[in-house]
Amino acid sequence: MATGGATRDVYVSEVGTRDGLQNVDTVMPTDAKKAWIAAEAAAGVPEIEVGSFVPARLLPQLADTADLVSFARALPDLSVAVLAPNLHGVRAALESGAHRISVPLSVSETHSLANVKKTHAEMFEEIAAMVAAIAERPSQGRPALEVSLSTAFGCTLEGPVPEDRVVAMAERVIELGADDVGLSDTTGYGNPAQVRRLTRRVHAAVGADRMTGIHLHNTRGQGLANVMAALDEGLATIDSSLGGLGGCPFAPGASGNIVTEDLVFLLESMGLYTGIDIEQLLAVRDGVQAALPHETLYGFVADAGLPKGFEYARAALD
Amino acid sequence: MATGGATRDVYVSEVGTRDGLQNVDTVMPTDAKKAWIAAEAAAGVPEIEVGSFVPARLLPQLADTADLVSFARALPDLSVAVLAPNLHGVRAALESGAHRISVPLSVSETHSLANVKKTHAEMFEEIAAMVAAIAERPSQGRPALEVSLSTAFGCTLEGPVPEDRVVAMAERVIELGADDVGLSDTTGYGNPAQVRRLTRRVHAAVGADRMTGIHLHNTRGQGLANVMAALDEGLATIDSSLGGLGGCPFAPGASGNIVTEDLVFLLESMGLYTGIDIEQLLAVRDGVQAALPHETLYGFVADAGLPKGFEYARAALD
Repeated sequence: MATGGATRDVYVSEVGTRDGLQNVDTVMPTDAKKAWIAAEAAAGVPEIEVGSFVPARLLPQLADTADLVSFARALPDLSVAVLAPNLHGVRAALESGAHRISVPLSVSETHSLANVKKTHAEMFEEIAAMVAAIAERPSQGRPALEVSLSTAFGCTLEGPVPEDRVVAMAERVIELGADDVGLSDTTGYGNPAQVRRLTRRVHAAVGADRMTGIHLHNTRGQGLANVMAALDEGLATIDSSLGGLGGCPFAPGASGNIVTEDLVFLLESMGLYTGIDIEQLLAVRDGVQAALPHETLYGFVADAGLPKGFEYARAALD
Repeated sequence: MATGGATRDVYVSEVGTRDGLQNVDTVMPTDAKKAWIAAEAAAGVPEIEVGSFVPARLLPQLADTADLVSFARALPDLSVAVLAPNLHGVRAALESGAHRISVPLSVSETHSLANVKKTHAEMFEEIAAMVAAIAERPSQGRPALEVSLSTAFGCTLEGPVPEDRVVAMAERVIELGADDVGLSDTTGYGNPAQVRRLTRRVHAAVGADRMTGIHLHNTRGQGLANVMAALDEGLATIDSSLGGLGGCPFAPGASGNIVTEDLVFLLESMGLYTGIDIEQLLAVRDGVQAALPHETLYGFVADAGLPKGFEYARAALD
C-alpha cells in the first residue's frame, strides 16, 4: 500500500494500464505508458496496476511490464501492482520488485479454462506454489499476494454462479496462504444487493481484513451504484480504469471498467478523501487519448466538468 | 398513483415524454408520442409525465399535452402526470384531467428567474393560487399537486445552494397546501451523501409521507449511486427518462436524466419489483429512436443486454 495513503478514506487503484491496455489492439509505446503512470501518480493515485506477467505472444500490449515496474517503483508514494496468471508470472513479478501481485481465479470453471486454461483444482495447486515461491523471499519487501475471484457475480458463459462457491473459494485461497481475496465483477453482472450479500458472507468466512477491495465494471451502468454498496460494507479499495478502458476478452460483451475520473468525483463529492486531483486526472486522460487516438474513452465528468463551486473532501487530521 | 402499482417496491415515473422532448429540437408527431406512451405503459411503467402546460410558442414540442393526457387517461392502470409552471398551466392541467401536476420551484432564485421569470415570493403566491384553484374542484378526482424543488443540489448559475434554504422552501410549499414536495437534481450536481442528508432533513421537516420521490440526473455518472442513497432513505418513486433524453435548457451543461432502462435493470437485479419488463422497454426505446433519428439516446443495458440467466424480481404477495 502507498505510504502516503494513510489518511485516505478510499484507496483508488488504477487498472487501466493493465486491464485497459490488454483490451486495446494498439500497443502503447513504453514511454507513453511511463508518462501515463507518472502523471497519474502525480495526480495522487496511490496504486497503479502497471501490467501483467503473461507471455508477450499472448498480450504483446503488456510485454514491457518488468520495465514499467522498475520505472514506477522509483515514483514516490506509489504502490506498484501487477497481475500474474500463473507461477511463472509470479516469479517474474518477484524479480521485478512489484509491491503487490494479483492473481485471477475465476469462480466459473468454464471461464477459468478459457482464460488461463486451468481447472479450479489446477489453480489451487498453482496458488499454493505461488505462496511457496513468495515465502522463499526475505520477509522484508515481500509483495502482497491477492487472489481476485473473477466472474464472482456471474459469468457470460455459465450465467449465474453459486454464492456458496464464491465463499468456499475465498476460504480456500486464504487457507492456501494468499494475503487477501477480492471479488471481481468481470462481466458487469453484479448488483448492489449482491455486492452487499457476498461481501458480508466472505467477510464472515475469512475476516474483513482479508477482503478489503473490489473490482467492479460499469457494463450495465451499475458500477457506481455497486461502489455505494461496497462502501456500505466497509470496502475501501476500489479498482477503476482511466476513461473506463478495459474489459475481458474471454467474457464476450463484458466491457467497461468503472471510470476513475467519475469514481473519484463521486467519492470526493461525498466527502470521502481520495488524495486525488480530478483536474489533473482529466489532463492525464487527455494524454492517454492522444496516445490512443483510435480508442474510445468513457466517462461523464470529462464531458460535464466539475460543478460550479465544487469542493474536494479533506483528509482527516491524523 | 397507478392502481396496479400497489405491490411495486419502487415506482418508476417516466419523464422522457416531457423532460426529454422539451430538450429536443425535433417536434415529435403526436401519434409517435402516443405510440411511445402506450408502449411504455404496456411495458409496465406505472406513471408517465406526458407533457407540460406551457405556451406553445415557448415549447412547440409540447403543444399537444392536452391531447396526450386525454389519450393516456384511457390506458389501464397508468398515472398520467403533467408539468405546469404557473397558475395558467395548472388550470389547463385541471381541464385536461391529469392525475398529477408537478410544479417546478427552483431553490436558486437566479435559476427561477431564468426558467419561469419569477422570484421566490412570486412563486409562493402562484403556488397558493394553484392550491386554491385545485380546491375548487370536487374532491373526487382532484389531482395531486407536487412541488418539485429544482436545483436542490446546486445550480450551474449560483453554484452550491444552502441546504437550510431547501428545507425551508419544502416546509413553505407544504404549508401552502401542496400534497408533496420533491427534490430535483436539475444540474447533475448531487452526490449520495447530499441525497441522504437532504432527504432526512426534509423528512424531518414535513414528514416522510410528504416527500416520497426524487428526480435525479446522470450528468456526472452519479445518477444510480444517488438512487441507492434515495432508496436507503425510503424514497420509492424515482423519475427517469427513456434513453436518458432530457436536461434543462436554462441550466447550461446539465443534460442527462437517469436512463429508465438502466434504472429498472438496477432495481430488478437487486430484487426490487418495478412491474416493468426490460425487453419491452428496450423495444420502446427502438421505437423512440426511429421517431427521433437525429437524437442520441444514452444507456448501458441497451448496448450490453441482460445478463445470461437474468431473473426479474417478483412482486410480494399482498
